[in-house]
Amino acid sequence: MARGLFLTFEGGDGSGKSTQSALVTEWLTRQGRTVVHSREPGGTELGVELREIILHRRGYIAPRAEALLYAADRAQNIATVVRPALERGDIVIQDRYLDSSVAYQGAGRVLDPDEVREVSLWATERLLPDLTILLDLDIETGRARLDDARTRYDRLEAEAAEFHHRVREAYLALAEAEPERFLVLDATRPVAELAEAIRHRVSELLA
Amino acid sequence: MARGLFLTFEGGDGSGKSTQSALVTEWLTRQGRTVVHSREPGGTELGVELREIILHRRGYIAPRAEALLYAADRAQNIATVVRPALERGDIVIQDRYLDSSVAYQGAGRVLDPDEVREVSLWATERLLPDLTILLDLDIETGRARLDDARTRYDRLEAEAAEFHHRVREAYLALAEAEPERFLVLDATRPVAELAEAIRHRVSELLA
Repeated sequence: MARGLFLTFEGGDGSGKSTQSALVTEWLTRQGRTVVHSREPGGTELGVELREIILHRRGYIAPRAEALLYAADRAQNIATVVRPALERGDIVIQDRYLDSSVAYQGAGRVLDPDEVREVSLWATERLLPDLTILLDLDIETGRARLDDARTRYDRLEAEAAEFHHRVREAYLALAEAEPERFLVLDATRPVAELAEAIRHRVSELLA
Repeated sequence: MARGLFLTFEGGDGSGKSTQSALVTEWLTRQGRTVVHSREPGGTELGVELREIILHRRGYIAPRAEALLYAADRAQNIATVVRPALERGDIVIQDRYLDSSVAYQGAGRVLDPDEVREVSLWATERLLPDLTILLDLDIETGRARLDDARTRYDRLEAEAAEFHHRVREAYLALAEAEPERFLVLDATRPVAELAEAIRHRVSELLA
């Protein structure tokens, strides 16, 4: 029986995850493969309710409560969307997965990233992607280009930059720890080149 | 600085948790102690939303997603209600806590109860009650009294009885594993006797 393929895209906002996800989907669909798109949080009906709570609710949410809501969303998504699709032999392409939780928690320095990872693995019965494409963006470079005319950042901007820098470092450390699972690509490369590199790796997995 | 006391009530529905909780609260209040009442799920504003999802939402919720929602509710309740009250020196009396999750999961046989306990301990930064009062009800006896006239149960009733029997066994096993923390009382004893036994143990803790 054919078993599907589970691909996840990771990287900061604006790194091109949606564009590359659309291109690889188009390519796979042309080959007659069924592609299921998924996202977290909010990939299921329950998830939409949880996403609303996590992202838009007024009032304080304790860090562990928030992490557990993300994990609940993930558990529902994996059990009801991703695993059934993989069992049908479909290809699941998902925008963000447990690496996001680990990288952002690591950068936020509130909860222990290893513990956050362990909660996610429990939530999903230890399902790891076959391939995780990390669209790595050198934030300073990207920012320097955009803000060429400016000479200094204010405190909040500097803090935000520092946070995104830590997210990036955390992502790169995850990729280094699991080189077989990760494909790290420089997100500043041309869209077509990146798409070609992704197709190449996915072809190998499908072969 | 005075540190408060964290008391939890456990036991099946109808075992008298609310009655005994009210009696011990009245007794403590008369001594000038501040008592904070709490419950799970739904002890916070976020918890009320989660309780609504867990108990009343239509549609399938995956077992791990459900367990994680309970844990999220618990994390919020402990971080924002219970710990601040204990730090003020108040007494927190809570209807159900992690032993409920462990006992009901153990009885339901879907998830590993040890894993469910571990998720709860992570959610709460390993906060255990100072005292857990288990109102133990011999279900067969209670039921036999009520249903004296009937000669047999239908299949669903028998399954329900078997489930409640397993919950009871799981509770008793938890009490046996932590005899210092648990006070196990026969819930069929008269209300005033039970209240006296609870006051006695709480007095010791306050001394």
